[in-house]
Amino acid sequence: MRLVISGGVHGNELLGIYLVRSLKEEGLSFPNLSIDYLLANPKAIDLCRRYVDRDLNRSFDREMLEVDTPIYEYERAKVIAERLAGIDFLIDLHTTTANMGVTLVVSSGDRLSLNMAAELVGWDSSIKVLRWLGSQEGAFINSLVPHSLTIEVGPVPQGVLHADLFFKTRRVVLKALQLLDRGEVEGRRGISCYNITQKIDFPRKEGGELAGMVHPELQGRDYGILRPGDPLFIDFRGEVVEYGGEPAFPVFINEAAYYEKGIALFLTERVPLGENL
Amino acid sequence: MRLVISGGVHGNELLGIYLVRSLKEEGLSFPNLSIDYLLANPKAIDLCRRYVDRDLNRSFDREMLEVDTPIYEYERAKVIAERLAGIDFLIDLHTTTANMGVTLVVSSGDRLSLNMAAELVGWDSSIKVLRWLGSQEGAFINSLVPHSLTIEVGPVPQGVLHADLFFKTRRVVLKALQLLDRGEVEGRRGISCYNITQKIDFPRKEGGELAGMVHPELQGRDYGILRPGDPLFIDFRGEVVEYGGEPAFPVFINEAAYYEKGIALFLTERVPLGENL
Repeated sequence: MRLVISGGVHGNELLGIYLVRSLKEEGLSFPNLSIDYLLANPKAIDLCRRYVDRDLNRSFDREMLEVDTPIYEYERAKVIAERLAGIDFLIDLHTTTANMGVTLVVSSGDRLSLNMAAELVGWDSSIKVLRWLGSQEGAFINSLVPHSLTIEVGPVPQGVLHADLFFKTRRVVLKALQLLDRGEVEGRRGISCYNITQKIDFPRKEGGELAGMVHPELQGRDYGILRPGDPLFIDFRGEVVEYGGEPAFPVFINEAAYYEKGIALFLTERVPLGENL
Repeated sequence: MRLVISGGVHGNELLGIYLVRSLKEEGLSFPNLSIDYLLANPKAIDLCRRYVDRDLNRSFDREMLEVDTPIYEYERAKVIAERLAGIDFLIDLHTTTANMGVTLVVSSGDRLSLNMAAELVGWDSSIKVLRWLGSQEGAFINSLVPHSLTIEVGPVPQGVLHADLFFKTRRVVLKALQLLDRGEVEGRRGISCYNITQKIDFPRKEGGELAGMVHPELQGRDYGILRPGDPLFIDFRGEVVEYGGEPAFPVFINEAAYYEKGIALFLTERVPLGENL
């Protein structure tokens, strides 16, 4: 099986960048795997920014891969599309400022990817699975390959390495490689995942400036239950905005990179993994 | 007394930016204070980056204020120097990814600034005072005024607002204004501060790439005691680097903005505030 491990799709998410570099240097050896390493956005990595011109991980739509523009990330997307041609499996590494622990983001419905997520949760029940079937902004990098595992870990600030999360992620990557190498990705029954149903923006003024913040009682409570009447936001003088919807499980609460995307958090429902895809 | 409250000297430290905006909108009224508000680096604020060309808060040396260059922050420094001419007191707002709670950074030795720091610690003993008598990179914004209070709060990622820290900082700013307004800044005896004695860089490879991370046992332990033999760094395969120096109190542990400055943490000694300046 031909496999790529990618980091630095977002240039300020240091964990993936240094995990890719260190695994490459270490020289992993699995008899049944051909492993390649990808630092996806070198300019953004040098600048320690998420991206140069636009979010690379929303730049893999077919039409984006065909246009000729001076947008750096479109050029990178083309290079990466060639690099990933013929690759069977992609492990893509990300971090978040939200308290999401080790989350596996499932954004395609293929059986191997779903089984891999299920195997990893069966192995370590602290791991969460988030089903995110794509963004309207543009396709994710893993849309280029038939099978994938996207690992999103937090909380960690942009531009910072937290060693504990680094080693937790390393352990998950090595387990995934071992499972693929041994052909032991059969899946498990009874695994739940969180399915994104809605995004919620911050309260804002007309010009887009924030008019409030995530309420302290919600901060860090990713995957906890949010009930009608629970505090959601708080404005700069202390006025509270309550949540008015149906009970739901919030994720990506207060993710730095989503302020500009108009997302303060996502709401999810908990469903069995592998159904309703 | 003429006073300015500044935020956004670093454009991705949202707390100060939104605290300045909201206090201005609220319209503070103190009989003996003339209060003005400053968003110091508007371009960096728009981009949600620390700076455009160079760190504004290291750009206030006399010679920097006199050169003509296309460096945006030097131009801003000149504008700000004019704006702060005749100002008696500056309250400057910052955040850090390090676990420094509410820290007052004292970088000048004038009696009013020292007394203000002492009063605030006497009022709330969770507040820490850090003595930082300037950076070799260039002078801080408060070098332009005779008296100042620099508030540094964390941990919070760049580009993120944490409401609890926002309101903690707001409370300290309002207390400082009240003390100045009433002329009640007489100082206190027996207040300690942490005096920076040394900076320590990450382990690095020849090209500057990181060769290790802050050890998990040190992460978040700002102002705790670091003893010889305590773990300091850990490399990407788990090898530990122990601290080999004299007992000291580390601060700014794993601050995102200091990776590029070659600083993983500062060491400090605890000394009485106001002595040995």
